[in-house]
Amino acid sequence: MFDRAVYPGSFDPVTNGHLDIIKRGANICNELIVAVALNVSKSPLFSLEERLEMLRESVKDIKNVYIDYFDCLLVEYLKKVNARFIIRGLRAVSDFEYEFQQALVNKKLYPECETLFLITDLKYAYLSSSVVKEIARFGGCVKDLVPDIVAKKLYKKFREENVK
Amino acid sequence: MFDRAVYPGSFDPVTNGHLDIIKRGANICNELIVAVALNVSKSPLFSLEERLEMLRESVKDIKNVYIDYFDCLLVEYLKKVNARFIIRGLRAVSDFEYEFQQALVNKKLYPECETLFLITDLKYAYLSSSVVKEIARFGGCVKDLVPDIVAKKLYKKFREENVK
Amino acid sequence: MFDRAVYPGSFDPVTNGHLDIIKRGANICNELIVAVALNVSKSPLFSLEERLEMLRESVKDIKNVYIDYFDCLLVEYLKKVNARFIIRGLRAVSDFEYEFQQALVNKKLYPECETLFLITDLKYAYLSSSVVKEIARFGGCVKDLVPDIVAKKLYKKFREENVK
Amino acid sequence: MFDRAVYPGSFDPVTNGHLDIIKRGANICNELIVAVALNVSKSPLFSLEERLEMLRESVKDIKNVYIDYFDCLLVEYLKKVNARFIIRGLRAVSDFEYEFQQALVNKKLYPECETLFLITDLKYAYLSSSVVKEIARFGGCVKDLVPDIVAKKLYKKFREENVK
Amino acid sequence: MFDRAVYPGSFDPVTNGHLDIIKRGANICNELIVAVALNVSKSPLFSLEERLEMLRESVKDIKNVYIDYFDCLLVEYLKKVNARFIIRGLRAVSDFEYEFQQALVNKKLYPECETLFLITDLKYAYLSSSVVKEIARFGGCVKDLVPDIVAKKLYKKFREENVK
Amino acid sequence: MFDRAVYPGSFDPVTNGHLDIIKRGANICNELIVAVALNVSKSPLFSLEERLEMLRESVKDIKNVYIDYFDCLLVEYLKKVNARFIIRGLRAVSDFEYEFQQALVNKKLYPECETLFLITDLKYAYLSSSVVKEIARFGGCVKDLVPDIVAKKLYKKFREENVK
Repeated sequence: MFDRAVYPGSFDPVTNGHLDIIKRGANICNELIVAVALNVSKSPLFSLEERLEMLRESVKDIKNVYIDYFDCLLVEYLKKVNARFIIRGLRAVSDFEYEFQQALVNKKLYPECETLFLITDLKYAYLSSSVVKEIARFGGCVKDLVPDIVAKKLYKKFREENVK
Repeated sequence: MFDRAVYPGSFDPVTNGHLDIIKRGANICNELIVAVALNVSKSPLFSLEERLEMLRESVKDIKNVYIDYFDCLLVEYLKKVNARFIIRGLRAVSDFEYEFQQALVNKKLYPECETLFLITDLKYAYLSSSVVKEIARFGGCVKDLVPDIVAKKLYKKFREENVK
Repeated sequence: MFDRAVYPGSFDPVTNGHLDIIKRGANICNELIVAVALNVSKSPLFSLEERLEMLRESVKDIKNVYIDYFDCLLVEYLKKVNARFIIRGLRAVSDFEYEFQQALVNKKLYPECETLFLITDLKYAYLSSSVVKEIARFGGCVKDLVPDIVAKKLYKKFREENVK
Repeated sequence: MFDRAVYPGSFDPVTNGHLDIIKRGANICNELIVAVALNVSKSPLFSLEERLEMLRESVKDIKNVYIDYFDCLLVEYLKKVNARFIIRGLRAVSDFEYEFQQALVNKKLYPECETLFLITDLKYAYLSSSVVKEIARFGGCVKDLVPDIVAKKLYKKFREENVK
Repeated sequence: MFDRAVYPGSFDPVTNGHLDIIKRGANICNELIVAVALNVSKSPLFSLEERLEMLRESVKDIKNVYIDYFDCLLVEYLKKVNARFIIRGLRAVSDFEYEFQQALVNKKLYPECETLFLITDLKYAYLSSSVVKEIARFGGCVKDLVPDIVAKKLYKKFREENVK
Repeated sequence: MFDRAVYPGSFDPVTNGHLDIIKRGANICNELIVAVALNVSKSPLFSLEERLEMLRESVKDIKNVYIDYFDCLLVEYLKKVNARFIIRGLRAVSDFEYEFQQALVNKKLYPECETLFLITDLKYAYLSSSVVKEIARFGGCVKDLVPDIVAKKLYKKFREENVK
């Protein structure tokens, strides 16, 4: 049965688009693990600790959601936590081909795993962590785009940066 | 919870690609209803009865799969059978935008419903009911592409047609 | 200068997505002609007169918008009404390649013409005349999707059809 | 070795875009067979005889090009004429997914066959038989878009139609 | 009314494709501001001063075009110069999804702004600043691809680089 | 005639997907030169010598395939080795637009050249050098994805890296 699913991502930082997927993903399984992927080569804006903290704060009211991270192949992580399902959001405006490739690779490496794609709410179709960071870097307002704790952290982060 | 899902389609006829989605879909919910949509305007090759028969025969070994049909909006059917989940397959070679539009329309009409997309196995990426009918019409071999009962029905259908 | 633009389409019927483009298009030119194209081969649900009436009613509060129709190549119509600009909406979920091809054909036939693409509001990304007709045909609610007069006409049209 | 290739299509009618692919295709094989496909269900504007005549006239100066037709699966035709290669053009603005699906189906039915895609010259990126017919139907000029014989036939065809 | 529009970009360096959009954009508004965006994180080949100089030289014969730069969010720049319109070119071969996302983000941050997309002339469909730099780096001829002043600067830049 | 073709790429490292294209490409020309492109700016995992060695070992049983490299524009290399044909694979899941742009640029710089696209076998649709490196970096099994010599080199490379 469909007990446990993993929603992997960089979450650098978590946005309201991610949060929409988390809430809806939590409705279709007993346990949803939101897992920060450390195996991605690009240099993040936020440290692992900061990303975990923002995620924890953002999902604290959803009972069956857990926050974790992994520093290995996603399929190895799935096996370790005994999960077969991956949740991913597809934005209407999205890097569709990349998601497809990843899903096929994961299926190849771990044939029992299954990627379930949800469509991101249209309200968030334009939203990505990169867009949020770009806006925050130049002092634009990100209030509607990210959870409160993320807005505060972004503000602090870029104020510090400008001081340097 | 994620009890009951509907996999809607024309299934004119069911292919091995559909069957792959049915099997995997059956793994992620308690009950999967495979529902033949009659609300599509194009003229089918097989009658509703033929399509239901082929589906029933093809899924007879999967315990939690049920065959049905509907002649209304998909969202009305979902409400009638008390299901919130729609299962759809995305082929790597696929009418992606169409699926997106349908999912968004359904969400608009019935905000509680959720479309879950599975990626069709690469083996079936080129496969569609239209392709199968095209091959069968010209006497090509469809053995690997559809369940046995469908291959037989296709053969019979086009032999009759050629006799006319 | 940018005096007069044409927004061509089938408008069978006009939707709130079209209306959004009409309002925004009217802001970027002195005169916007919304022109029903009769040169498209498919059989429409509404007659030309019905489509013109619904359009006129829907735009009656926008000063610089005019309703017309044409039964020739779009570029010939442009020359006849002395306009160089074509307005088209691109939906995030859209037949993008078709629009591109049309714009290139028009440029080839009438090098002085210019197609300006606006992006349809995300709220209407899933919306098309076909979707609206599909919903209305099965008695679904189209109130948020089309102007009032269109909702009424659709209701009447499909009630009559069901009576037959 | 790469002796014989088939360029299949409806050619209803042949355009300068097709002719560009024919010329370039003729450069990469010993014999190129341009083959009119009759197995497509839509009703053509030109009869088979007219399409063959226009093709023959258009390629008469290219030594190693032959004109033929087939009324079976493409892969059966390939076997019959002892060819393994299929030539297809991809327009920058193109029905890319359809071509992919067809190539994969053909590979499945006849694993030894190989589809070679050439990119249509940018000059013809917007061009298709449908576009040409649409323009000709409304009396637009198709001189740059098709070979002379096709322009004449189109003119005659639509004049006759208007007389009726 | 449609008085003032901004055409933002990196212009590192300006190409004939950009110039085509500038000329056509200048026809649809009273004033067109071509604005070099400094808020993009990648390291440019040309300094801001060089890019401004090449742009000024390239557009010197077009009366209503002004050259400027900005180091903030595009929407903030729009407000500062009192413009509501953004002009962008879409290449037939293009990063379409990126443009869509940007347009949606800008609309979110500044609902009154409007992005107008023009289709790049087919002649320039393959052209980008990156392509031009790649060709010039290896001594290829860029004469048809960029304005004269850019060709000279590129030649000089890469000769210097090779001397180092 | 179609004597000599070039299959360019980074081959960092060669995968079974590349090998599939090499084998099929070798069937359609007298000589196929597999040429490592050094003109790409990203930092490779394997040195030129390693990449050449892995390629040579992988193709040693195919008679008419030669391994080479180039550090100039692809079209200059084509002229140098007296070849007019470029072979490229298109994956069903692929950076299609990039390939198109490259083909158009090459055609512009060297009008006599011709890019022939083959469709990558579905088995390798998800495969790329990046995917392979990502899997190997985290100790996943790449046996089915690359030739034996590449699997060994990857294993050695990342073991060394982890030791550092």
